[in-house]
Amino acid sequence: MVDDNVVFVGEKEVMNYVLAVPTQFNKGSEEGVVLKARGRAISRAVDAAEIVRNRFLTNLDILDITTGTEEVEREEGGTSNVSAIMITLGKK
Amino acid sequence: MVDDNVVFVGEKEVMNYVLAVPTQFNKGSEEGVVLKARGRAISRAVDAAEIVRNRFLTNLDILDITTGTEEVEREEGGTSNVSAIMITLGKK
Repeated sequence: MVDDNVVFVGEKEVMNYVLAVPTQFNKGSEEGVVLKARGRAISRAVDAAEIVRNRFLTNLDILDITTGTEEVEREEGGTSNVSAIMITLGKK
Repeated sequence: MVDDNVVFVGEKEVMNYVLAVPTQFNKGSEEGVVLKARGRAISRAVDAAEIVRNRFLTNLDILDITTGTEEVEREEGGTSNVSAIMITLGKK
């Protein structure tokens, strides 16, 4: 779920990802922590970022949001495009 | 679904919202068109923005993405917080 300063947001309950953010900051991610998600988990990444900055680490803000399109392999063969989001949280 | 230069993204199939963007630009939204969504529709708004800029209106790009938290009334009374996203598409 966590790699360097990136928290990958998937299908778990949102609080798992909210609580991963201070853990990453405490490991010394001074340049910020990135919440990354694809597909339907994008909504959950936005929820996590909003909960972090409004309720848990109010000294943080969203510094940057970027989106992209990634190619994933389908189980039945071929590829699909899936949207992705990267939300950077850092000190205000 | 469309108000001024805002396209509200809900539960319909994503192409409905993709096609609403050029319609809005043709009405003269020179300052850009905003895709707005709440809750689980956030993922669909990102999908729509990515499809618009990659496949339909490649002279457009995402100029800004902001998120927020809105209070909504629950059917059983009281209020809930829901995340929202605003994606601004405009000329590069």
